[in-house]
Amino acid sequence: MQFELTTDYLDRLRAAIRAGNELYVNAQLKDLFPADIAEILNEVDLEEAKYIYTHLEEQTAAEVLVELEEDVRERFLASLTSKEIAEKFIDNLESDEAADVIAELPDAQQDEVLSHMENASQASDIVDLMNYDANTAGGLMQKELVKLNVSKSMLDCVKELRKHADHIQDVYAVYVVDDDDKLVGVVPLKKILTVSLRKKIAEVYNPESISVKTNMDVEEVAKIMEKYDLIFVPVVDSLGRLVGRITIDDVVDVIRKEETEDVQKMAGMEALQEPYMSATTWQVLKKRAGWLVVLFIGECFTATAMGFFENEIAKTVVLSLFVPLIISSGGNTGSQASTLIIRSLALGEVSVREWWKIFRREFKVGLVLGLLLGIVGFMRVAVWSSFIELPHWEVVAFTVGISLVGVVLWGNLVGSLFPLFLKRMGLDPAVSSAPFVATFVDVTGLLIYFSVASFALHGLFINFE
Amino acid sequence: MQFELTTDYLDRLRAAIRAGNELYVNAQLKDLFPADIAEILNEVDLEEAKYIYTHLEEQTAAEVLVELEEDVRERFLASLTSKEIAEKFIDNLESDEAADVIAELPDAQQDEVLSHMENASQASDIVDLMNYDANTAGGLMQKELVKLNVSKSMLDCVKELRKHADHIQDVYAVYVVDDDDKLVGVVPLKKILTVSLRKKIAEVYNPESISVKTNMDVEEVAKIMEKYDLIFVPVVDSLGRLVGRITIDDVVDVIRKEETEDVQKMAGMEALQEPYMSATTWQVLKKRAGWLVVLFIGECFTATAMGFFENEIAKTVVLSLFVPLIISSGGNTGSQASTLIIRSLALGEVSVREWWKIFRREFKVGLVLGLLLGIVGFMRVAVWSSFIELPHWEVVAFTVGISLVGVVLWGNLVGSLFPLFLKRMGLDPAVSSAPFVATFVDVTGLLIYFSVASFALHGLFINFE
Repeated sequence: MQFELTTDYLDRLRAAIRAGNELYVNAQLKDLFPADIAEILNEVDLEEAKYIYTHLEEQTAAEVLVELEEDVRERFLASLTSKEIAEKFIDNLESDEAADVIAELPDAQQDEVLSHMENASQASDIVDLMNYDANTAGGLMQKELVKLNVSKSMLDCVKELRKHADHIQDVYAVYVVDDDDKLVGVVPLKKILTVSLRKKIAEVYNPESISVKTNMDVEEVAKIMEKYDLIFVPVVDSLGRLVGRITIDDVVDVIRKEETEDVQKMAGMEALQEPYMSATTWQVLKKRAGWLVVLFIGECFTATAMGFFENEIAKTVVLSLFVPLIISSGGNTGSQASTLIIRSLALGEVSVREWWKIFRREFKVGLVLGLLLGIVGFMRVAVWSSFIELPHWEVVAFTVGISLVGVVLWGNLVGSLFPLFLKRMGLDPAVSSAPFVATFVDVTGLLIYFSVASFALHGLFINFE
Repeated sequence: MQFELTTDYLDRLRAAIRAGNELYVNAQLKDLFPADIAEILNEVDLEEAKYIYTHLEEQTAAEVLVELEEDVRERFLASLTSKEIAEKFIDNLESDEAADVIAELPDAQQDEVLSHMENASQASDIVDLMNYDANTAGGLMQKELVKLNVSKSMLDCVKELRKHADHIQDVYAVYVVDDDDKLVGVVPLKKILTVSLRKKIAEVYNPESISVKTNMDVEEVAKIMEKYDLIFVPVVDSLGRLVGRITIDDVVDVIRKEETEDVQKMAGMEALQEPYMSATTWQVLKKRAGWLVVLFIGECFTATAMGFFENEIAKTVVLSLFVPLIISSGGNTGSQASTLIIRSLALGEVSVREWWKIFRREFKVGLVLGLLLGIVGFMRVAVWSSFIELPHWEVVAFTVGISLVGVVLWGNLVGSLFPLFLKRMGLDPAVSSAPFVATFVDVTGLLIYFSVASFALHGLFINFE
């Protein structure tokens, strides 16, 4: 049965805590997984959280800590001494999780916590991990793994596994290294169960050729694990020596985070570093205000552009009524196009080299969409003119229709090619988001619209003066 | 070393194929993984692909087939007989992959392929899997797993594992069932290696409580596997009987697909079913045109809204120049807000219940952003008035500034609350995308702007008439 945290459940649990009803609290917590207990702790206050913690086994308590929301964890750890943090929590965590928790602590406290750790080699592993950039394979890996020299036997392999099985959570394979500690291959657990223990490792192991380097970007790691359907991947240093391993559940978190950042950038804001509800109002404001002002300044050029045509507008006010319609059509088309391309780039479905293929396709698509909206726009004016008095409605309808073809086509080309251009320049294409494309297309779209209008009014059909 | 497909590499390989240079082709393919070979096959023509296929081992060939892009696979399979498809490929695939490949075939051919399969129980497994909705746990699971009755011993467990180890790719655990085939728990492989084989399973197994039901939505499965950091999860039917298992690499594909769909919906289009480059121009057009026309029709109301104020615009043309600036500011703010909330809903960071908390926060944020843009807008008009002749610039500046506060605040509230409203109504919040919010805010923002303008022009400061 999946656990579901209801307000009702929470109310009863908090009442039991206040009443000091240990039996009830223990009964509730007994069957829960760490992730469930963390959900509860995210909702209760600090004193209640501490009460719950005292009723957890040490190993569980440590795992719960990792699953907490960042700000909740921060508040909780701030209420403990460095010694308590080290002995109750860090000592019971795997190296990657321990390093992440310690990295969140105030700088001054980090060394203090490390010095209180019981296991010196574990402490040294953590220090080691903290040196890697968080966005690289080194920052994501854990040091716990089972490795064996290629000269050993399968029986040694089983012995080594038994030695480590208790304190390494997920073991799915034994890594094989040479005398220089360089990774040469892997023995899947399944194999250990199915071959004779008298065999040498050298006869049994897969010469595993997929590994990642410590300095590889985590997004790259995610792509490799996805491509080859890997559940775990060994990490090697620049000499090819085995230094850690990454399991896919950590990569899933990376994928989620990376996609959230992309989506937020694509909405014309900076990526939030924390979940929406954990971020303070001030943090959200800061991430949004900057780009909003930049977009606003860009959009100010629409007034400049329209200023060029002030006389036309004064003479034919009806022209101005269609301004929002025209520019939003260009903007919407551009948003679709830029989103399609940004996403395809992120997934590796298209590459910058294919820009000409993309241009040709999007030219066709933009033209058809433009014609479609142009016809609807023409009809809109035509129908409207039968309800209200609209002199020379056919000139207005023509202007609106033709402009829509031009603006939609233009918006589509800008939207699809701008992300490619940014990528080519080595910038993040997600920044060429819908709002930016829309702003650019707004300004240029106005020029198209009023140019068509001038032409139609002064030249082609009629002179209003 | 990671494989990288260069045009150079491809050219040389194709030349070798044309020359019938078997030695070269075999040497190239020998060390590649199925996913790499699939990358090559995605780029070459059908005859070359067939040549490469004849030089692959059957097992590898089948795995390569699964990794191909959908349209490439379709074309390749269309060139084979049903018997070839069954014997060369389907017989060598795991049940979930086999079912996916068969589901892509023309209806008439599906039964034919199944009838040519050598292994009848495998065929029956596939038929079984094809009955499940592709978006449920049943549609994602595979039937291959190792299970044992709880009354057996650990020695039986090892025997069972050895029996299945060859034809099940990734075995990480043995599932424990009771006499009714109901799932009661799990024995991790690690445990099998570390406990005495004389023990009974009943003494050793974890009473595993996390499993998913066959009809559970795949996105829900993904969330559960993420929450509990699971690498694999057993699937049970509504009676609790073990029917399959899901591994996380399949879930990663689901996450990517789901996020792509969300992103595309958020850009105001229908989700594409295939990668951008594989989709035909016509498919892309169909997905984009519908919503674009809907948005266009919505945006037509901007002309209606501005029509109400035609007289004001005729008298004070300068007002119309700021229309794009005002409405785009509302739209951009609304885009940011709706994206933030849609994403937070998708990640489960906020829930509809918290709407009041969100309202209060976004009211504050919207007000600050509105004031910020209002001040910049006021200054824009003020500075501008020093360059050109602008009678009553302070009235215009006031109108622009105050309207911006109102429109930005309004856009922010609409953008943040509309996704919550859709979710509450049981609809997909991703549809309340930036373009929809922007269209709605455009129309209503114009009403705000011109109302403020009328008030300023006729009432507050001065009467232009």
